[in-house]
Amino acid sequence: MKPLTLAICTAALLASLGPGTSHAAGSGTGQPRNIILLIGDGMGEQQLAIARNYLRGARGRLLMDTLPVRSAAQVLTIEDRGAGQPMYVADSANTATSMATGAVTSRGRIATSAGSDEDLPTIVELAAAAGYRTGLVSTASVTDATPAAFAAHISERLCENPDNVERVVQATPYKDIELGGCPADAMRNGGPGAISEQLAQSGLHVLLGGGRKHFTVASETGPGSVLELAVDKGFTSVSTRQQLLASQPGARLLGIFASGHLPVRLQGEGGRIAELPKPSLLNRLHPYLGDVSLPPTMVCEPNPAFAGTPSLQEMTGIALRHLSADNDRGFFLMVESASIDKQAHRRNPCGSIGEVAQLDEALGSALAFARQHPHTLVLVTADHTHAAQLIPYVSLYDRVPVPIYTPGYLARIETPEGGYMAVNYATTSFSREEHTGAAVPVLANAEGKGRLPGFIAQPDLFRIMAAYLELPAARD
Amino acid sequence: MKPLTLAICTAALLASLGPGTSHAAGSGTGQPRNIILLIGDGMGEQQLAIARNYLRGARGRLLMDTLPVRSAAQVLTIEDRGAGQPMYVADSANTATSMATGAVTSRGRIATSAGSDEDLPTIVELAAAAGYRTGLVSTASVTDATPAAFAAHISERLCENPDNVERVVQATPYKDIELGGCPADAMRNGGPGAISEQLAQSGLHVLLGGGRKHFTVASETGPGSVLELAVDKGFTSVSTRQQLLASQPGARLLGIFASGHLPVRLQGEGGRIAELPKPSLLNRLHPYLGDVSLPPTMVCEPNPAFAGTPSLQEMTGIALRHLSADNDRGFFLMVESASIDKQAHRRNPCGSIGEVAQLDEALGSALAFARQHPHTLVLVTADHTHAAQLIPYVSLYDRVPVPIYTPGYLARIETPEGGYMAVNYATTSFSREEHTGAAVPVLANAEGKGRLPGFIAQPDLFRIMAAYLELPAARD
Repeated sequence: MKPLTLAICTAALLASLGPGTSHAAGSGTGQPRNIILLIGDGMGEQQLAIARNYLRGARGRLLMDTLPVRSAAQVLTIEDRGAGQPMYVADSANTATSMATGAVTSRGRIATSAGSDEDLPTIVELAAAAGYRTGLVSTASVTDATPAAFAAHISERLCENPDNVERVVQATPYKDIELGGCPADAMRNGGPGAISEQLAQSGLHVLLGGGRKHFTVASETGPGSVLELAVDKGFTSVSTRQQLLASQPGARLLGIFASGHLPVRLQGEGGRIAELPKPSLLNRLHPYLGDVSLPPTMVCEPNPAFAGTPSLQEMTGIALRHLSADNDRGFFLMVESASIDKQAHRRNPCGSIGEVAQLDEALGSALAFARQHPHTLVLVTADHTHAAQLIPYVSLYDRVPVPIYTPGYLARIETPEGGYMAVNYATTSFSREEHTGAAVPVLANAEGKGRLPGFIAQPDLFRIMAAYLELPAARD
Repeated sequence: MKPLTLAICTAALLASLGPGTSHAAGSGTGQPRNIILLIGDGMGEQQLAIARNYLRGARGRLLMDTLPVRSAAQVLTIEDRGAGQPMYVADSANTATSMATGAVTSRGRIATSAGSDEDLPTIVELAAAAGYRTGLVSTASVTDATPAAFAAHISERLCENPDNVERVVQATPYKDIELGGCPADAMRNGGPGAISEQLAQSGLHVLLGGGRKHFTVASETGPGSVLELAVDKGFTSVSTRQQLLASQPGARLLGIFASGHLPVRLQGEGGRIAELPKPSLLNRLHPYLGDVSLPPTMVCEPNPAFAGTPSLQEMTGIALRHLSADNDRGFFLMVESASIDKQAHRRNPCGSIGEVAQLDEALGSALAFARQHPHTLVLVTADHTHAAQLIPYVSLYDRVPVPIYTPGYLARIETPEGGYMAVNYATTSFSREEHTGAAVPVLANAEGKGRLPGFIAQPDLFRIMAAYLELPAARD
């Protein structure tokens, strides 16, 4: 949490230059310059294929498939200790930090440097200092790693609110487990406070998502809650879909629509997720013998808990309206579909599929906005890849007369076009699946032509975005 | 195997038009037009990340990463029976058929249509009919699915030689298993013969790879072997690396360098592959208890069996020399690194890594050729994705005090830069892993600009290549 010297210096420098010195299409010319960065958390090519097959059919296209510019981003992670040796699988904290700051850091870190714990200036802070409006939208708690890394700085992603900033303990499903904490970041210790407290004090113009439980606790600056602090700092607060849709541009907008993460749109039939195949006793004794019971096939169905939740597209549409109204400078907006990842951790393929659909719909709104507003760079990417694998519904070895099945969890899904998909989760036998380490897709609208090479390192996204907004890249 | 009417008609039509009517940069103008299609079998983004990390480091770049044009290809497969319902995971036969013919077919088929078993004209046949030279290079047996689908037509990929064209039986490791056959394709039954027999009679200018055992058996047309038939049809035959490197352009070249597939370049330390984690007895009783022994870490080392084998780059270089010498029309060359896939089936990550390196080196030769020869379209792609997953070496949940490990096979690899990768194989508990169903990367040199959209269906590759060579696309 070491102070934001670099960010402040850069911001001060930018402010001193003033809008007149900018080369942006932007300020004062009536041609604002905008970035809409859409992140599918955990949305690698496997997850995309699973969602595409279900939502559009094997020969169908997601909207994002039609984008004219494609790259891939190599995800980079380093160890927190020692010489910063490479780690080959990331989490959402270090990847969001890569995209938000251009730096490579260690797992769990929110816009802070590995080992040295220095605060890293984010694209949101730099853009705001240069006169752009900024917004963050997520289907997760707004204090979750991805949105947090764009507007907060803390050494541990779990320090989400003043109650747990000093010590994070996981009470369930095991005995109390110490998960660390961020004592140096607590305001009572001279730090910037927990993530929700930092967001409440941020200069964000729009902040939409879940996470009420992180805002209803008492602020460290007191006397009221973190939410009251945010309102005190100038946010208008809304908490229902109706209020959101009725909100008018003007004041800065904080919309929190669930206690934790927002409910997801789809679930498996009857709430089912992937299950373990059940080998017969004979097969347990010898793999060539006996047989195996595979989970029954299922379809995806609406998740009743989603009722009343604003869709990611609705939140994106409102954010775009608020960010663009009476704004001749432009804006930076990050939109995250968070639960592609969270549902993959839980082995719920239908959950992930519905959240890919949400991102694709939000992209629709982004592209419609871009068509009306030239100089709008629309980017779609993922932060890291994930456990779900599309495996053969009928084994490649089906002519071999022995039971053949995954050692992991399996969901067998009937698609609307009448095919059958087998989705495998087998990175771990623990109750939550792991991330994986492949490069992630990066897609852009035509505004990305010439700006996005065919292959980049994930932190390059920060530099590409900073260059588009003509911000001095704070790090290289 | 229904006769090649369409191909023959198209070929005849093209031949009757003659080179003078072509719009290619090509014929007679001293500006030949060439395609070099490099296929990494099973080389999805997971496999690429594993290889990149080992070969170049987390921040490094494969040569293919530097290509300026990137797309992704949606892999399409249909059932052989019924209405051709989609299947969501492919094999190398139907994917090679997609690329070679532009058609979607069923698993196991070599340039024949699903259900109706019609022969589908291939890019090799169409290019040859239009006056281009053609070549196929593979680290597999040249009769294996990928090369076969470019120059042969048969209903079952396993019908590789005259001895098994009517009936394919797998003798090991189980009792004899009937795997089908292609009786209608046998020459004795009026068909075009087994794959090796079709290749021996093909018009290919260059054919390099493994598979001697499929050429030393008696030809159905007798009296000699299939190899003798090939020589009789005009091929010069070489069988060692020295002979290959000494071969001079002129005659058509058949080079077969191993009985089956070529040996791979790398292996795990001491020949090790991925292994099952070994939970303690206590952990077997309850997943929260006890502990687990993970396989020791290892490095990759040269495979002694590779000694004397021509590298894929060497074969590619010779193929390019033979195809381009005294050729003012141009050529089509397919180069396959086959054992990325075969080693993933066997859970040998080092094996796959070495074969990605081989493809990347062959790309180096292709790009060097393209720099000297304008109008050379270089494409790099994969046919399908595969089982290998890069998972966290240290679990995301490492603070939870229970043993956390994959239910599948695990290899823990120390990289030359001093990091540690965990590679997981867990699509099946069978002795061979399965393919997976994600979209595959498609990369191109600058000649691909404007020709390769950001997202395609795999059969579109055929149309893009046919258009580049100004061949009439036989199917749309």
